[in-house]
Amino acid sequence: MVARRTFGSLAEDYKDVVVATVCSHSSLQIFHGAKQEGFRTLGIAIGKQPRFYDAFPLARPDEFLIVNSYKEIADHADDLVARQVVAVPHGSFVEYLGAENFAKLRLPTFGNRSVLAWESDREKQREWLTSAGVPMPKKIARPEDIDSPVFVKYYGAKGGRGSFIAKNHDEFMAAIKPGMKYAIQEYVVGTRYYLQFFYSPIADGGYRLSRGALEMLGIDRRDEANIDEMYKLGAQERLRELEIYPTFVVTGNMPVVLRESLLPKAFDMGERTVEKSLELFGGTIGPFCLETIVTDRLEFKVFEISSRIVAGTNIFVSGSPYSDLLEPGMSTGRRIAREIRTAQKRGLLSEILT
Amino acid sequence: MVARRTFGSLAEDYKDVVVATVCSHSSLQIFHGAKQEGFRTLGIAIGKQPRFYDAFPLARPDEFLIVNSYKEIADHADDLVARQVVAVPHGSFVEYLGAENFAKLRLPTFGNRSVLAWESDREKQREWLTSAGVPMPKKIARPEDIDSPVFVKYYGAKGGRGSFIAKNHDEFMAAIKPGMKYAIQEYVVGTRYYLQFFYSPIADGGYRLSRGALEMLGIDRRDEANIDEMYKLGAQERLRELEIYPTFVVTGNMPVVLRESLLPKAFDMGERTVEKSLELFGGTIGPFCLETIVTDRLEFKVFEISSRIVAGTNIFVSGSPYSDLLEPGMSTGRRIAREIRTAQKRGLLSEILT
Amino acid sequence: MVARRTFGSLAEDYKDVVVATVCSHSSLQIFHGAKQEGFRTLGIAIGKQPRFYDAFPLARPDEFLIVNSYKEIADHADDLVARQVVAVPHGSFVEYLGAENFAKLRLPTFGNRSVLAWESDREKQREWLTSAGVPMPKKIARPEDIDSPVFVKYYGAKGGRGSFIAKNHDEFMAAIKPGMKYAIQEYVVGTRYYLQFFYSPIADGGYRLSRGALEMLGIDRRDEANIDEMYKLGAQERLRELEIYPTFVVTGNMPVVLRESLLPKAFDMGERTVEKSLELFGGTIGPFCLETIVTDRLEFKVFEISSRIVAGTNIFVSGSPYSDLLEPGMSTGRRIAREIRTAQKRGLLSEILT
Repeated sequence: MVARRTFGSLAEDYKDVVVATVCSHSSLQIFHGAKQEGFRTLGIAIGKQPRFYDAFPLARPDEFLIVNSYKEIADHADDLVARQVVAVPHGSFVEYLGAENFAKLRLPTFGNRSVLAWESDREKQREWLTSAGVPMPKKIARPEDIDSPVFVKYYGAKGGRGSFIAKNHDEFMAAIKPGMKYAIQEYVVGTRYYLQFFYSPIADGGYRLSRGALEMLGIDRRDEANIDEMYKLGAQERLRELEIYPTFVVTGNMPVVLRESLLPKAFDMGERTVEKSLELFGGTIGPFCLETIVTDRLEFKVFEISSRIVAGTNIFVSGSPYSDLLEPGMSTGRRIAREIRTAQKRGLLSEILT
Repeated sequence: MVARRTFGSLAEDYKDVVVATVCSHSSLQIFHGAKQEGFRTLGIAIGKQPRFYDAFPLARPDEFLIVNSYKEIADHADDLVARQVVAVPHGSFVEYLGAENFAKLRLPTFGNRSVLAWESDREKQREWLTSAGVPMPKKIARPEDIDSPVFVKYYGAKGGRGSFIAKNHDEFMAAIKPGMKYAIQEYVVGTRYYLQFFYSPIADGGYRLSRGALEMLGIDRRDEANIDEMYKLGAQERLRELEIYPTFVVTGNMPVVLRESLLPKAFDMGERTVEKSLELFGGTIGPFCLETIVTDRLEFKVFEISSRIVAGTNIFVSGSPYSDLLEPGMSTGRRIAREIRTAQKRGLLSEILT
Repeated sequence: MVARRTFGSLAEDYKDVVVATVCSHSSLQIFHGAKQEGFRTLGIAIGKQPRFYDAFPLARPDEFLIVNSYKEIADHADDLVARQVVAVPHGSFVEYLGAENFAKLRLPTFGNRSVLAWESDREKQREWLTSAGVPMPKKIARPEDIDSPVFVKYYGAKGGRGSFIAKNHDEFMAAIKPGMKYAIQEYVVGTRYYLQFFYSPIADGGYRLSRGALEMLGIDRRDEANIDEMYKLGAQERLRELEIYPTFVVTGNMPVVLRESLLPKAFDMGERTVEKSLELFGGTIGPFCLETIVTDRLEFKVFEISSRIVAGTNIFVSGSPYSDLLEPGMSTGRRIAREIRTAQKRGLLSEILT
């Protein structure tokens, strides 16, 4: 196993951990779960204290840190450590702070920050998953090679804006923006399942891996504007005349369950992903999400991995059809808090924090 | 604040409130919630006692009032007052009774009946929301002005039947039925979220408004026949040859959650809607629903408001990902009953009944 | 009532029932429900013990029977009876074992096995439902008669693969595979609701039938690959050039609720289905699912019936918006276990087992 550079040891003297995160993305769930496990909570927000928490008393952070910009969080790191803060990252936390700033933030943080280098680079992500034996949509090397539908993503594209579908080289050339870096992959037709896993390196029982155990806490599907409802206007081909093009911006989530006979495959993929991550960079610790398409041949294709809590878990603040079979009412937010609590009790915080 | 004409004072001497509603729409949830809060319940039905409640013992009304027509309810008003009834209106209650009959029904009724005049008239609804600063799809004054997709609704159209989409003036002319009054608005492409709010004029804590507080109890999406599945047959343009046209009749609902970063905007819209309603007509009291589209620019457009319990809350009879953060298991039906209970205890029934 | 041939009497001496099923389909839910009702559980699997149960301790079977092929289960029947096993069938159980082998399996089995003969033959299924007065999509006798959209299913087609839509005779001829037996029915455009009923022949209260009572435990919608997301690529008509055709393979499920005003009709259909089944073959006992389309005229069309637990119930392992009004947290899996428990206590096992 690869060693992890860590600020987790800063938490070893904590008596009364405060769970902190940025006030967005899945923060209601993270605070709710932390409160359920008896932690104090701290919300980090820009400019002023967000009011919407007032409507959700069971998820309202006990304290706030108001900053002028997310980059400023680093300036408060010593103070936050003094306040016994453990940060729980989510997609917006990392995006707002910037991956580089996040990586060197001198604050005990839930999970393994080394995963970022592997997750944020499309090539390294593909290397991780395919070397683990996880099936992915085929990569198309050159636009000239497009001879069936493909999905094109710009590098660093945020939340699906700017992605597009092309069915041949002409359509690619008509849609591509010059000067942008892109990746082309096979467009897989099927239904999408976002598999919400949790990997605990310190668990004893359950679905055992070489170290610790793997859990499945829920499955969601993302809502995307405008692709999801665009068809109501008529055929896409006609809409081009009106300059209406499909976009893939995530606006929300809905709950789903997966055909049970696919669960063994799902766990196999989750297991391979974790085992390879242990080998490559010390492990993807805590929640991660395999974003999959299931084809009509009942085969999975994993088109992306998110190596932290995903917003799709927000549906399941009071449990899911899967987590309820682990412990009734368990959410990913609560599971994170539970992991911190368990690690603290057993003197293993440095195993789950970096 | 505008004064409200009210029959709410008739309830001031009630010792043992009976919660009543018409046996349709969201009645299972309303009765269930009332029972959870310890109220007796009464179902109003046409012709004969509905049998389906027998399958739902926790939501079965204790008593029934069987009438020959909904208009007959008015004839029973004195008797219902003697039986200590508070009526909880829902969409079918108002529709079946008729807005005018409902407005003058001499029976204490949950919520502010003055809202009806503002909600049932498309122009006044637009005036209310836009003067509050709530973003709506653009109104198109004349069919000749259609130069991008529009949604056309006939006045008084029930449940989406007869609405249609047109992408230009020709399509409008081909679809419009002569002699019908209609409204044309911009067709906004995005994903739909039906935001289920609750406004309590008597709450002390929570998300505070100038009076009382605002809550969010859930978010759903409506199923609509035949638009939702029509695409499976092929392109709409081809289906016209088969005389198959899109319709928008609500047949059910599914649960969704919204991207958390949109919640501050959602609450801001809810707040503006309530504050303006207090100014215009004494407030939209209890549950209301902002029916929104989120575009790929992550902007809301509110295409309609329902100022009472919506059927989308039926998904959440045991709580939602939002209401569970207020109080585990809270439904809109139960929240209504709780409001009646709280108001009764504090001698404030006239604040929430009309 | 028609007499049922039964192995249910073999269970009459059981002191400590073990609930068994095949490790697929809805087994997590069945085991979870059985455990909730205090039963021991046994999982039947091919080749080796499935690992995914390790992640779901509340649904993990206490014991396993590992066989080389499902047909081998019959060889273990005596041993299973000695171990006091009651088998709970689900779609995969029956499919894997084969209908004929299942029918003669010498093992007390939950529900009435006679239903299989009526359910597995499309003509007999239609006879059952239509003679009960349940509305179905029209049957089209000959391909030459196709003058509006139709849905074509091959006999014995598994999970929707090979079904297709045709809008006229030409499209039928282009898609049909020679030498295959098929059924043609009207394609009904609308939204789909899979109504999860439970019929108890021994219940006293509730929605009473001529014998026992009818319950509604939930409603789901199936996800189908690739039809559900195929539209994202553009018009179907164009996709034919790329040799991409719609398929209807079930990959998962999502939760929905139905417009409440449709519930009386839903219960009426459920009632008719059960009453006719009592007359024809001794009753469809336990869970069954009416698979419906609701049109924009708010009319149901039942396109299929499944006379046992359906996988769509997997969403509701902790209760549904309908079952929660019967008993909070009730799942179909638990309801089956409850029925076995109740029957056992009252000496009525032979009423619910065959």
